[in-house]
Amino acid sequence: MTTELSAGALTWLLERARQDYQDLAERELSLDLTRGKPSPEQLDLSDDLLSLPGGRHTAADGTDVRNYGGLQGLPELREIFAGVLQVPVAQLLAAGNSSLELMHDCLVHALLSVLPGAESRWVDQERIAFLCPVPGYDRHFALCERFGIDMIQVPMTADGPDLDVVERLVAEDPAIKGIWCVPKYSNPGGVSYSDETVARLASMSTAAPDFRIFWDNAYAAHHLTDEPVEIADLLAACAEAGNADRVFVFGSTSKITVAGAGVAFFGSSPANVQWLLRNNSKRSIGPDKINQLRHVIFLRDADGMRAHMERQRALLQPKFDAVARILETELGGTGLATWASPKGGYFVALQVQDGCAKEVVRRAKEAGIALTPAGATHPYGDDPRDAFIRIAPSYPGLEELERAIEGLTVCVRLVGYEKQAS
Amino acid sequence: MTTELSAGALTWLLERARQDYQDLAERELSLDLTRGKPSPEQLDLSDDLLSLPGGRHTAADGTDVRNYGGLQGLPELREIFAGVLQVPVAQLLAAGNSSLELMHDCLVHALLSVLPGAESRWVDQERIAFLCPVPGYDRHFALCERFGIDMIQVPMTADGPDLDVVERLVAEDPAIKGIWCVPKYSNPGGVSYSDETVARLASMSTAAPDFRIFWDNAYAAHHLTDEPVEIADLLAACAEAGNADRVFVFGSTSKITVAGAGVAFFGSSPANVQWLLRNNSKRSIGPDKINQLRHVIFLRDADGMRAHMERQRALLQPKFDAVARILETELGGTGLATWASPKGGYFVALQVQDGCAKEVVRRAKEAGIALTPAGATHPYGDDPRDAFIRIAPSYPGLEELERAIEGLTVCVRLVGYEKQAS
Repeated sequence: MTTELSAGALTWLLERARQDYQDLAERELSLDLTRGKPSPEQLDLSDDLLSLPGGRHTAADGTDVRNYGGLQGLPELREIFAGVLQVPVAQLLAAGNSSLELMHDCLVHALLSVLPGAESRWVDQERIAFLCPVPGYDRHFALCERFGIDMIQVPMTADGPDLDVVERLVAEDPAIKGIWCVPKYSNPGGVSYSDETVARLASMSTAAPDFRIFWDNAYAAHHLTDEPVEIADLLAACAEAGNADRVFVFGSTSKITVAGAGVAFFGSSPANVQWLLRNNSKRSIGPDKINQLRHVIFLRDADGMRAHMERQRALLQPKFDAVARILETELGGTGLATWASPKGGYFVALQVQDGCAKEVVRRAKEAGIALTPAGATHPYGDDPRDAFIRIAPSYPGLEELERAIEGLTVCVRLVGYEKQAS
Repeated sequence: MTTELSAGALTWLLERARQDYQDLAERELSLDLTRGKPSPEQLDLSDDLLSLPGGRHTAADGTDVRNYGGLQGLPELREIFAGVLQVPVAQLLAAGNSSLELMHDCLVHALLSVLPGAESRWVDQERIAFLCPVPGYDRHFALCERFGIDMIQVPMTADGPDLDVVERLVAEDPAIKGIWCVPKYSNPGGVSYSDETVARLASMSTAAPDFRIFWDNAYAAHHLTDEPVEIADLLAACAEAGNADRVFVFGSTSKITVAGAGVAFFGSSPANVQWLLRNNSKRSIGPDKINQLRHVIFLRDADGMRAHMERQRALLQPKFDAVARILETELGGTGLATWASPKGGYFVALQVQDGCAKEVVRRAKEAGIALTPAGATHPYGDDPRDAFIRIAPSYPGLEELERAIEGLTVCVRLVGYEKQAS
C-alpha cells in the first residue's frame, strides 16, 4: 500500500495526523481500554444475586450448602453449564470464583503429581514446553513464565492455530506437554476454531503421552450477533479418537454474572476429573456452595442463562459496533491497519504496520488513552513483529469508548505515516 | 493402675463391659463424631449472610466489589480480624473460603518459587522435612504427604510442642523447613501455647535460612469459657528476634460464620506478603469481594465478631460439658483413659491405653458410632502408641452426642479390660 502514496500525499497525511494528535493531546483525556472488565451496567444485570439465596440453604439433594463438603460442586449448577461447555454433568466440576485459578492449579498438580498417562511429574522432567497460538491471552503466558515452562509460538489462522505447525511440533518433541486454546471468540483475535481444527487437535499424534489441551472456553456463551457460533465438541472428539484424557475444559461465569464473585468450571475425562478431585481434596474441604446455589436460583436453567446473555449482548454490541465503525471510518483504505469484527467475546485485535504497535500504545498513553501494553498478546510480552494491539471495549461508557477509539486511530495514523516518511 | 485390680474385679468389670457393649450394639445407633463440622444451629446464627450484601456493592473506598481486582482483600474486613489474628491490617490478606487452601498454596509456592531467605526452590532440594507436633491435625499431615515432605513427630506438652526437641532438631538439620502449629485450643488436644513456647519459637536458631512456622490459628476466637485464652504475638516476636519472615499466620471464618462459604486469612511479614501476592497475582484476578463485603456488613467490627462468638459458645459449651461429664462418670478413676477439658476449639483428645485406640474405634463403628480413624492424629495415619482418639462434639445434637459418648465409653471399657485380661 505504501508504495501507492506519492511523496506529497504522504506529507499532507502526516501533517494532518500531527495536527490531529496535537488536538487530541490538548483534550487531556483519561480513558482506559486495558482490560476486559464488564461495565457497571453489565454487573447491574446480576444485582439480584446480591440478596440471594435469601431464606434458602439447601441444594436439590438436601445438602446444607452452608457446611463443608461437596468437592465437585452442586450438580444443579453443573447441569446449567454442561451444554454450553460441552461437558457431561458427571465430568464437570464447579469450583471457586476464577477459571484462571483452575488452570494454575492444573499446571501445579501436573508439575507436582503424576498426570494420567504421564511417565513422571513434570517438575522431574528436564524441559517442559507449551504451544502458544499468537496473538493470545497474556495471563496464559504469565502462568507458563511463572513455572519456567518454555513457550513456542504458533500462528493463528482464521480457523484457529495453524494445525500444520502444531501437528509437526507435537509429533516431534516429547517436551511439548500442552497448548493454550481459547476456542470460541478467541482473546484477542475473536477467532472461533473450525470443525477441522477441533478434529485434528483431537486425533493428532503427540510425542508426549501426557499432552494436554488447555481449552479455555471463556466466551462460550458470549455472542454478539444473531448467529451464535457453535464449535465442535473437543472432549467427545478426543474420546472418539482414543485420546480421552487429552483435554482440560475451563469456563466461568465471570463475564456472565459478576467478574469477581462468579463460579468457575473444569471439565475433562473421568480419569482427569478424578485426578483433579484427588489433588483438590488435599487442598480444600469444598467450594463455596452458597454462591453456587445463588447462581442456580438466579440463572434457573440453560435457557435462563442464554436469556441473561442476550441482555449482556444488548449492552456490549453497540460498543463493538462503534469500534468497528470508527476503525472503518478513520483507518479503512489507509493500509495502516487491519482488524477483525468478532462475532462474540470481549476483544478486538488491531493489527498495525510491523514495528508500530509499541509506538502507537506509547503515543496513546501520552494522550491519556491507556491500552493493554503492546506485546501482551505474545509470550514474554514480546511480539516479534510489534504489530498487535488488543482493544477491550467492554468497560467504558459508549461515548468514552468512541473518544478513545477515535484517539487511537489518530495515533495509528501518526505513527504509521511517520514510519513511512522516515 | 492395672496392677491394683484383682483378678476377680477384672473379670467382673470385663463381664459388665461385654454386657454393656451387647446392649449398645442392640440399639443399632447411627451416630457420627468424625469431623469438626458446625451444627445446623450454629450455621443458623449467620443466616443473615444469605441475603447480604443486599442493595450494596461498594467497599468503603468506593471499589465496586462485583468486578475484578483487589488481590489483598477488603481492608475493612482485614480490620475486623487483624486484632484476633495478631497481624497488622497492612500485612493481612483476605482470600477465598478456605485457610487450608492458603496453606496448600504456600507450600506450592515455596516448592516452585524461591521463598524470601531461601537459597533455592524447595522442589530443587534433595529432602524437605516438617516438624509435626502430635497429636495434630490430619489435614496438615496430608499436605506434607501429598508433596513428599518428610514428617518428623514432636511430642506435645501442656505448653505446646516440646521446644527442647524442636530447638535441637531445627538447629541441626537444614532440610527441616517448617513446623505445623495450631497455637490456641489445638486440634485435637485443646492445648494453648505458653508465652515461653512462643518466645522460643521466635528466637530459636534454625539451620534452614527459609524455615517457616505454619501458624494455623484456626480457633483464635473460639472460646468455651469465661476466661478467653490469649497467646503471645508470634509475628511481632519473630520480628523482634530478627526473624521477621519466619511465620505464616492462617485463620478463617469457617467456624465463625459458615463452614463452606466463609473467608480465609493469611498474615506475615511484608516480604512474605509480597511474595504471596506476587505468586497469587499469576493465579487469580482477585478474591470474592462480594462475600468479603457480606461478612463486613454482618459482623460489623471486632466487637460484633466477639458477640457472635458468644452465641456460638452458647451452642457449643453444653456439648463439651456433656463430653467431660460423661467421660468423668464412666471412665473417671478406671485408669483406662485420660482426656483434657479444652477451654476452646472444636475437639477433645481422648487418650486410651497404648495399643487400644484402633480397637476402640473399630468396636464403636460396629456399634454404629463413627469416629475419626485412630491414627489420624499422627503423620501417615500411624500413631505409634495407638492411643489417641479425636472426639468432635460440635455437629450432633446434644442428646445424640450424649448417646455417642456413652457408647464410646463402653467401647473403651470393653477394649481396655479385654487387654488387661489377655
